[in-house]
Amino acid sequence: MSDIFDAMCAQRACRAFTDEPVADADLARMLDAAVHAPSAENKQPWEFVVVRDTDARAAIGALIARAWNTVGREFSKDRLSAGLLADVERGATGGIADAPVHIVVGADTERGLPMTAAESIFPAVQNLMLAAAALGLGSALTTIAVGYAYELSEIVEFPAHVRPMAVIPVGHPARPLGPPRREPFATRTSRDRYGARWD
Amino acid sequence: MSDIFDAMCAQRACRAFTDEPVADADLARMLDAAVHAPSAENKQPWEFVVVRDTDARAAIGALIARAWNTVGREFSKDRLSAGLLADVERGATGGIADAPVHIVVGADTERGLPMTAAESIFPAVQNLMLAAAALGLGSALTTIAVGYAYELSEIVEFPAHVRPMAVIPVGHPARPLGPPRREPFATRTSRDRYGARWD
Repeated sequence: MSDIFDAMCAQRACRAFTDEPVADADLARMLDAAVHAPSAENKQPWEFVVVRDTDARAAIGALIARAWNTVGREFSKDRLSAGLLADVERGATGGIADAPVHIVVGADTERGLPMTAAESIFPAVQNLMLAAAALGLGSALTTIAVGYAYELSEIVEFPAHVRPMAVIPVGHPARPLGPPRREPFATRTSRDRYGARWD
Repeated sequence: MSDIFDAMCAQRACRAFTDEPVADADLARMLDAAVHAPSAENKQPWEFVVVRDTDARAAIGALIARAWNTVGREFSKDRLSAGLLADVERGATGGIADAPVHIVVGADTERGLPMTAAESIFPAVQNLMLAAAALGLGSALTTIAVGYAYELSEIVEFPAHVRPMAVIPVGHPARPLGPPRREPFATRTSRDRYGARWD
């Protein structure tokens, strides 16, 4: 699926994967896409760690499960629909851990400014995930493990100046992903001033 | 240019625009792309204000110039190459103001959590800009005006619970945009642990 609008409209969080491996060639295309994203001052502060190692993925999965079980579930249970809550729970307690690849994304706070880390990292993460979708792979933007920044950094050996920003599981979707559920853009778009709706 | 990899590799910050107007149909495609991005808890907290009004664009342009003249230039002069500094300066002091459309992007902090605003907004902003690139339009991710959040909110009438996150100028590029200058992904990618480089 190489049409950009098709890929953007088909992208959906994937939290259940088969154990089929992901080829280095596909990861290379995703990472090449990622580093073409804009960043503040063009400092390109991203650092990607592609984790295939079984123990490291298990440790990341355990961190996500711990964050979910101690804080996430309680926090989310009244905020999400029953269907989404169940999907997130399955992901956080095993689905994400099962992905054959975890890409841990960090922001180098010496190369770029800490203040502009988010605007410099998440466009690259979006390119990465769009490329995955175009290649028929599943992925999801997860940040729950970032709450345990020290432990996550320890697993992938980030030095102190690299701040973990996200964990992106990548793999072949266990089930076909339906289209994403979104409100139409016109309900979130105004003309000239907030509230003067597009339509 | 509808191939997703082509569009991602061609995207480059545009800070000089012609006065040719941008069609509503193109903006609609860009905004539709934006709202298909992922967001934390799928809360879709984005708010877009499409500014065509001459006075409002002038006010946004003045805010950007003020931020540049009071803080930005001094801050950036030793951090950017001479070429990039000159391009950013021309953009901040008139180029961006000249764009026929400014899209002011906000995060609704009642719909989504303030804590996850950045990871919920910047992927959508990236979709918006990729769609612009695919349609042959120029855009740039600017956040300098966000430093004057109160003044920016006043121009587009954001209520207190909508936090301004970015201003995206959109228009037809005044000059062809060359390819973006990026370090190869392999220099920013490790295997299993930071420092064990991809290659």
